This record gives sequence, structure tokens and C-alpha cells, in this order.
Amino acid sequence: MSRRANGGTTTAGGGSTSTGNGTATTVDKGVDFANYFCTYAFLYHQKEMLSDRVRMDAYYNSVFSNKHHFVGKTVLDVGTGSGILAIWSAQAGAKKVYAVEATKMAEHARELVKANNLQDVVEVIEGSIEDITLPEKVDVIISEWMGYFLLRESMFDSVICARDRWLKPTGVMYPSHARMWLAPIRSGLADHKMSDYEGCMDDWHGFVTETKSYYGVDMSVLTKPFSEEQKKYYLQNSLWNNLHPNQVVGTPAILKEIDCLTVTVEDILKVEATVSSTIIKEDTRLCGFGGWFDVHFKGRNENPAECEVELTTAPSVDDGTHWGQQVFLLHPPVRVTEGNEILVNFSMSRSEENHRLMNVDLAYEIKVSSGKMLPPVRNKFYIE
Amino acid sequence: MSRRANGGTTTAGGGSTSTGNGTATTVDKGVDFANYFCTYAFLYHQKEMLSDRVRMDAYYNSVFSNKHHFVGKTVLDVGTGSGILAIWSAQAGAKKVYAVEATKMAEHARELVKANNLQDVVEVIEGSIEDITLPEKVDVIISEWMGYFLLRESMFDSVICARDRWLKPTGVMYPSHARMWLAPIRSGLADHKMSDYEGCMDDWHGFVTETKSYYGVDMSVLTKPFSEEQKKYYLQNSLWNNLHPNQVVGTPAILKEIDCLTVTVEDILKVEATVSSTIIKEDTRLCGFGGWFDVHFKGRNENPAECEVELTTAPSVDDGTHWGQQVFLLHPPVRVTEGNEILVNFSMSRSEENHRLMNVDLAYEIKVSSGKMLPPVRNKFYIE
Repeated sequence: MSRRANGGTTTAGGGSTSTGNGTATTVDKGVDFANYFCTYAFLYHQKEMLSDRVRMDAYYNSVFSNKHHFVGKTVLDVGTGSGILAIWSAQAGAKKVYAVEATKMAEHARELVKANNLQDVVEVIEGSIEDITLPEKVDVIISEWMGYFLLRESMFDSVICARDRWLKPTGVMYPSHARMWLAPIRSGLADHKMSDYEGCMDDWHGFVTETKSYYGVDMSVLTKPFSEEQKKYYLQNSLWNNLHPNQVVGTPAILKEIDCLTVTVEDILKVEATVSSTIIKEDTRLCGFGGWFDVHFKGRNENPAECEVELTTAPSVDDGTHWGQQVFLLHPPVRVTEGNEILVNFSMSRSEENHRLMNVDLAYEIKVSSGKMLPPVRNKFYIE
Repeated sequence: MSRRANGGTTTAGGGSTSTGNGTATTVDKGVDFANYFCTYAFLYHQKEMLSDRVRMDAYYNSVFSNKHHFVGKTVLDVGTGSGILAIWSAQAGAKKVYAVEATKMAEHARELVKANNLQDVVEVIEGSIEDITLPEKVDVIISEWMGYFLLRESMFDSVICARDRWLKPTGVMYPSHARMWLAPIRSGLADHKMSDYEGCMDDWHGFVTETKSYYGVDMSVLTKPFSEEQKKYYLQNSLWNNLHPNQVVGTPAILKEIDCLTVTVEDILKVEATVSSTIIKEDTRLCGFGGWFDVHFKGRNENPAECEVELTTAPSVDDGTHWGQQVFLLHPPVRVTEGNEILVNFSMSRSEENHRLMNVDLAYEIKVSSGKMLPPVRNKFYIE
């Protein structure tokens, strides 16, 4: 899903959320709409995703190169948006397609289905996948549910729910697998953000001086909370970025592997991994880490894809996607060189205030050529 | 309140809102928080408002130049934010100040009060003014509640509620009066936005062609809804702008006058006025209308201010405020000249989806020098 996907505001009262401690509780629907769903009701937002060639090609190819999975079959498209995946499924020969969409975009999807003469095959249903009822179970569940760094937005919960409710025991998932990747990177953003933060604090100090002088109120007691708020904003919030492959300075490592047929919500509440990466560039700066994902369309063991398709969001010159990568910056950057080993302890869990946003704990240790380990550095990040 | 004040997302389900047809119904608190209140919990946002010199000077002067209203009196600060108005009220000699704040900013206000040694006078209460209980009625209600074009955010409803519940029959309102103004303007934004809109539509047509060609899906049925969505975004949404006085091409007119002591929520659900403006510049373009407001601190008839203070957000070279003005653009602009009379029929009411946002119907007729009236032009706008 695109950059404009809302998720940056917090909830208050009125219902609790799925949290990192493993409990999944009710999310207030109105709040979830105001925080998350509403962006997807805009055609502009759908167009952004539909204009992502890499994304479109991958799904198009996965469907049309694997017609045996679709011809004469029943399909469920979870979060159909404009209806594109449902339409392709029907064009590939599906007997029946249920296209479920939570927002008013469903009305446009219905129009699009009709304009493409597929209303006899594709039934658009407006509602949450958790609430709606289908007349039958399906052979295929297709969905484009991936958020930044795969799990931001936590839409996959809904796909899992759909699978558990509506997929036949022999059914296939499109995509079938997903992986999260992490690699050490260099980036000018580290310096920029630190500079922005320092400028912001300089400005604050001037503000405190003036407010005391002109208005007789001493605001210095707010300096600490203000600096924490700004530190989070400038230095700890992960950033969307379109990394150049040359910025990847170490071997990428897999943080998480997901089998979409068997994974549970419990499995993805927390992503925890210890990985190792070897620096591949001589005399460079470790400015942070870049995170991305890939998904694969492999079908299932008993009913594999004839043509396996991969959709990757790894740094690329020509094949970038609207997902970009998520960048976690280090302050300050660290000098490293070819052969150094970076050991990373990565832990990501859902924000208590908003289950669609993430908290990240990232600790790294550097092993230099002599074999010596530098002291571990621990960092907190927020994916908002 | 500042530009970053959230209000642009819409509500869904879970509770209804105060609408333009005159009924005031319950707003879902969680949704209202996600849509509106949450921005005010950020110190950065408070700082923006505290850094607005014109705003700060006006309130500072209104309090300290009218100590007779505060010395030995009880005060209620509605929406205290950082606590600044409550602190000034106490410094001006108030016996007791109740500072009510709906967000966690209340915790910072409490710290600030303590750091300025006023904890014996100022009591910070975290909660909605509609819900909390005070031990007594007050002599003064002070509040900085004004949104863009005065009423965006509909915070004044809360001040009226506070007044009806907690102001003594002899009490005074700070500010005491408010007015909304409208004037014909010229602005390069009209051409820019039209150009942006046309570019966006050109891009869309290319997108439709490519999607049909590469992916076999005909999206042309979505052209109409897409163009309506973009037209609203580019051409019909009012804009924040800091107008130069030279951009005001006609005499400003008053749309609404409010006596804060007597006005009811019913009175402000709909702002309707027919006003006239005379063009004051030779051979210019009427590109749209600029809207702004002013408030006055006059006390009340029985207990007037000793020093009347005005806070205006009219276009100004040196005394601009964070409110700027709201700009309603015409497409296309119209050539007018000195002496032409513009008759405007203005009607503003609350959005059904979100009572804190506004719908505007603006119709204008131009009377040229011969006395002839050009046909009326009607426009719909949205204050989001």
C-alpha cells in the first residue's frame, strides 16, 4: 500500500487494539476508519498504487502465468480497492470472484467491473472481511496487503482472517510467501536529520528566552519533553526512502519468513531476529539500516504455481516501487570497512496506541577485523 | 489554532455530528480525537501558536491592560493547551484559575504552572469542558478558540458550553466579540491550481491509456469520479495563504458579527450573508475571495474593558498570524475594474461527515459601470 496510507495519528479511548504482548482485542471501527481506512477511499491513492509498474507486473504475471489456478475456480480478493486483482482473476478464467472492500471505493470497483463486462463473474461486496459472509469457500485468496516494510498497517491480519474463514482446505494464497529483509546502509539523511533536529532545538532555546523576556513565562521546564518529542520525530521515526543499491554497504539478511498458508496473527505480532551482515564496502559509514520485503507467488506444495513470480522491494535503480524502503538512522553514523561483521538484534512489535503502527528495538554490535567486538548500541525506532 | 490542526479526515459510523440542518448530536469521542484533538497534544504545535507574536501580544495586552477584570477574580481557561492564558490570568492577579485541557498537553501545562510558581492559583484539569465539573462559577472565561476563518474546528461550541455552564451572570468573555470578513482578491494561486488540476487530468488520461494497453483493463469509467475528486482537491478546497494587502482588490465586508456573551451554537451552525464590495483597483483580475476574522476584548456593557484590544488576521505586511487567511479561488478569474460592485451571497455550514469542517456556497454577481449586472456565478467550496 502507498505512502499516503494514513496511520500516523493515534487513537484515544473508545476500544483497544492488538498489541505486542500477544492479546488481540477489538479496534474501534470509527477510529480505525479515521486513522487508516479513509485514505483508501480516494481514487488518487488507488491510482498511485495502480501506477506502480513493478507491483502491477508482478500481480498480473502471477495471475496470467498461472491460469490453472484460476480457470473455473472461485476467488476471494481481500481489500479489492479499485477491483483490479478481481478483474484479472475473472479475465484469467475464474468462475466466480468475490471482491471485498471496506471503503466506498467498493462503489467504483463495481462500476469498473461492469465497464469491463465482468459483472456476471465478479461480485463486489462493501464491508470488512471480518464481518461479511460469503455463500461458499474459495479456491484462491488474492490480496495486495503489504505495507511499508511488509507489516506496517497490519492489513495481513485481515487476510489471515479471510483465509481461516473462507479458504478451502486445498486452496492457494496469492502471494504464497513473504520475507522481511534488513541491510546496513549509508545515507546522507543521517546528517540531514541530525542537523534539522539541532536547528529545531536551537530555535526552541531562542523561543524560551524570548517568551521569558516578552511574556514573563518561564518555559524551560518543557525543554526536556520538547526535545524528546522532536528527537522521536527527527531521529527515531523510520523514513520512507528510495535507496540506491550503492547505498547498501553490507550483505542483506532475512528477518522473517512467512508462509501465508499457515501463519497466524500470533506469529506476526512480534518480529524478532538476530542477524549478521558483512560490510562489503571499503572505508564507509554505517548510517543506519534499510528494511524492505519481497513476496512470492508459488502456489502450494500440492498445487504449485507453474510459473513462480517474485515481487521484491529491494533497492533498485530501475525497478523501484511505491513502497520504497524503510530507513532506520543511527546517530551518529559509525565508520566501518570491508569485512567488518555487524550483529543485529531486531525486535518489532505493534504500537499500543495504534496496532497499525510499529515500535522497533534495534541493537547492533560491530566485530572488527581483529575479532574484537565494539560495545553494543541500542536504538528505539517508530514506524508511523 | 494553527495550520497543523487536524480535521481533514472524515468520520465513519460510530456516532453522528453537529450538522448544518440545525441538529446537534453526539460526536464519537475516539473519532473526534483521531480527527481533531490529537494534534494539540504535540508541544511542537503549541510552540507554533506560542510563537505567533500578534496572537500573543493581543492576549497578553488584553489581560495585563485590564487587570480590573482579573484581580481577586475566578477565571476559566477553555482549552488551556500549554497553560499560557491561565498563567497570565494568575500573574494579573486572579484569585483562582481553572485551566481545562482535553489532551495530555494538560500534564505539560501542570508542569509549566508549577515551574512558574502558580500552582496555588492555577488548577489544571484534564478533560472535555463538556464533561468536567468545577466547584464554582467564574468571573471570566478566557479562551483562544479561533480556527481558520474563525469557525473551522468548531471549538467555539465548547466555549459556549463553558459559558452556559460556568460563567456567572455578571461574568465577562475574553474575547468578547468576533467578526468574519470577506474581500475580493487577486492571486496567482488561481492559475497555479488550475494548471495543477489540468496536469493531473492529463496524467490520468495517460494512465487510462496505459492501463488498457498493458493490463487489459478499461478504467475510463472512473474518469468522471476521478476528475470530481481532483476538482475538489485542486479547485474547491479553500487554501491557507498569507495574503499581501495589495492582493485585496475590493472593500472588505463583514459576513458575521458575534457577541460571545449571548451567541448560541444554533447561531453559528450556519453563516449566511449577502454582502457588497466595491473594486478599488483599476483593471485587475478577481481571482477569488479572501476570508479572515478579528476578535475584540471589550468586556461587557456593565463591566467594560479599560483598554479595548483588537486581534485581527486581516492581510498585513508585518503583522501576519499563523491563521493566515482562507482563500476561495474562482475558475476562471474575472476581469474587473475600479468602481465595479461585487454582490456576494455567502453561505457556510458544517460538513455532515465532520462537524469541524465546513461547506461553503458562494455566489457572486458583478455590476459594471453602466449599471448592468453580469449573470450570477455559483461556486461550492470546502474548508478542510
